[in-house]
Amino acid sequence: MSSGSLSELRNNPLVFVEDLEQPWLSDGDARHVTKSLRLRSGARLAAGDGDGRWRWVRLTDGGELEVEDQVVRSDPSRNQVLTVAFAPVKGDRSDLIVQKVTELGIDQIVPVHTARSVVRWDAERAAKQVERHRRIAREAAMQSRRTHLPDISTMMPLMELVGGRNDVAFAEPGGRPLSATDRPPSCLVIGPEGGFDPGELEGHETVGLPGRILRTETAAIVGAAVLAARFD
Amino acid sequence: MSSGSLSELRNNPLVFVEDLEQPWLSDGDARHVTKSLRLRSGARLAAGDGDGRWRWVRLTDGGELEVEDQVVRSDPSRNQVLTVAFAPVKGDRSDLIVQKVTELGIDQIVPVHTARSVVRWDAERAAKQVERHRRIAREAAMQSRRTHLPDISTMMPLMELVGGRNDVAFAEPGGRPLSATDRPPSCLVIGPEGGFDPGELEGHETVGLPGRILRTETAAIVGAAVLAARFD
Repeated sequence: MSSGSLSELRNNPLVFVEDLEQPWLSDGDARHVTKSLRLRSGARLAAGDGDGRWRWVRLTDGGELEVEDQVVRSDPSRNQVLTVAFAPVKGDRSDLIVQKVTELGIDQIVPVHTARSVVRWDAERAAKQVERHRRIAREAAMQSRRTHLPDISTMMPLMELVGGRNDVAFAEPGGRPLSATDRPPSCLVIGPEGGFDPGELEGHETVGLPGRILRTETAAIVGAAVLAARFD
Repeated sequence: MSSGSLSELRNNPLVFVEDLEQPWLSDGDARHVTKSLRLRSGARLAAGDGDGRWRWVRLTDGGELEVEDQVVRSDPSRNQVLTVAFAPVKGDRSDLIVQKVTELGIDQIVPVHTARSVVRWDAERAAKQVERHRRIAREAAMQSRRTHLPDISTMMPLMELVGGRNDVAFAEPGGRPLSATDRPPSCLVIGPEGGFDPGELEGHETVGLPGRILRTETAAIVGAAVLAARFD
């Protein structure tokens, strides 16, 4: 059985482990693998380190992982590192953004604080959110067979992310369609429902997304999709 | 105040009414307007018939709508009628598809029954679902200021939708990127988690979407976005 075939990953589950030399399943992953995926002893799955390195393993009677093959490294799916930044939204809509943007293969996900942000997180809340978002991204990456986990940042001020960069585009109604810009940006910023402050846009390109008026979570998912499609 | 400015719609709520000559709010819409949107007496809003015709109205003390201006007609946002068909998924993931695809301005939304569909609806369930989907689409259309409601079909067999058509593309891993096809399709079909049966694909174009492996609801939203972007 060839060791490094990414296409085979489609037909076998992927789990992330701490140590590729001595892989084992966390309690949560063991439950997921046996209850949700209904894997039985002898099932073959890929164990990855979340940084592109992975190997085939087999599930044993005792729920352990038996190493089957050498560790291989899969390259990132594109040369460009793509970033999606968004002004957090209430409730589980931020979770949905992280899940879907991870499925779409975006490399870096950054919640940003903007001038008109309504949702504000204090330090404790921000720390809890980043932990939650990383858990969601990890599950979405396993589900979509991403061997590279996305980088999930803690909330930062918008200027800290975009200051001095010239590869950033802001999603803004009336901007040139993101699907038709001369040069696709590598970082796309999605504002809060109230939009950006004009000062925040200064010196940056604005791009339009399909649809008339999108909720923030739709804009983030759609923006990530159109951005990723530019690099297909 | 100019009567037909669609850009003004951005800054005012849109509600759908039965009769544009004598518009009134249903109980549900009245609650939405006063509780969620917190509109007060005197607030200006657009009342639409869901078929592109609308007029400005004002909310009165008694929660009625006072006609302000002539009925105008807004054109569809593009010449082409775009269809997104999908194999239904469990729980609220079908609802999410309808909501987001409506926000994206897709004209026709069709749940289809495919060879490998896991979710099956009997006639009673299908009737309930279409009613539920229409309610969700109506809310999403108001939110995104779509004056044309999408057409939401009851579940139909895949062949009934695509038979004899040459403008249909199936989302399938390995297909040519939808963002880069020679001629964009006007109907995109999203299969169940188990994929399409080879016989279903015969004679039709297959197209790829960004991301490695997408859940059905992500594929539907992303496919709708990339399709709509082709017509921007």
